[in-house]
Amino acid sequence: MDTLEAIHSRRSVRRYEDRPVPEELVQELVAAACNAPSARNQQPWQFVVIDDRQILAEVAKINPNAQMARRAPLGILVCGDLSLETSPGYWVVDCAAAVENMLLAAHALGLGAVWTGVYPRQERMDGLRRLVRVPENVIPHSLVIVGYPAERPAPQSRYRADRVHRNIW
Amino acid sequence: MDTLEAIHSRRSVRRYEDRPVPEELVQELVAAACNAPSARNQQPWQFVVIDDRQILAEVAKINPNAQMARRAPLGILVCGDLSLETSPGYWVVDCAAAVENMLLAAHALGLGAVWTGVYPRQERMDGLRRLVRVPENVIPHSLVIVGYPAERPAPQSRYRADRVHRNIW
Repeated sequence: MDTLEAIHSRRSVRRYEDRPVPEELVQELVAAACNAPSARNQQPWQFVVIDDRQILAEVAKINPNAQMARRAPLGILVCGDLSLETSPGYWVVDCAAAVENMLLAAHALGLGAVWTGVYPRQERMDGLRRLVRVPENVIPHSLVIVGYPAERPAPQSRYRADRVHRNIW
Repeated sequence: MDTLEAIHSRRSVRRYEDRPVPEELVQELVAAACNAPSARNQQPWQFVVIDDRQILAEVAKINPNAQMARRAPLGILVCGDLSLETSPGYWVVDCAAAVENMLLAAHALGLGAVWTGVYPRQERMDGLRRLVRVPENVIPHSLVIVGYPAERPAPQSRYRADRVHRNIW
């Protein structure tokens, strides 16, 4: 899929077919995330691939906005590892770039995905940390829920000329 | 350009040809950023398109890591507008997703770009706010420097299997 087409046709997908995401696609998603830019190329991320249905059902109890996890075959928890930071404070931004790469890759691969926010909501960070036993120096940042799409939301153009300023605001 | 190819071949480009970026491509870059996902679809971003060479030269004084701005035809300052937030705290993550879309779009359009970090470095946020008169409720997040590439950094694969955990860490 063309890059600009992917950027403009990607939408959040919250309903999935009842079939697993093949392992080679899981690896493609993580590889796309890993190739995001990061401050000083610090690559401060860690990933927890969750395909255990019981764990995914628990996710929905931790984050009320993640009910789709109950019927999803896959979740990928993107975390920031503070022990990997060489440019302190940028892990939040770096991990978000990784998530966006993952979402675009999912769409290009014929999958559907939705970004469920974790950081900076403390109760979600704590809950997910306990659920999948994330170590202390690592912070749950975002949980991407993935599957083969059972819905096809129409592309949405969000460009707004009034948000663009020139040289001096 | 294919989406996965763009994700895997995009690199930071810090040297540019001495020619401007056409206005229609500037708009494509901003439109790509605007189509990023955001928490509750809040779209909390604002953009300052900077093509004034004097202002770009000043950028390099504010951010020691942005020396390439001195010889770049274009900078796009991505900002978070707190008055647009409906999901407080997520503007940092949302704006990062917008920046990543912009970087991938630039690469796909034959441009070269580099992400220069602003948030959370207070002196860079303050300096850029003063430089282009960003209003109080708006926070400078990232400055993307763009031009036609005068260097072609080789693709870099950053996938690391040891960063991937399964179900329980």
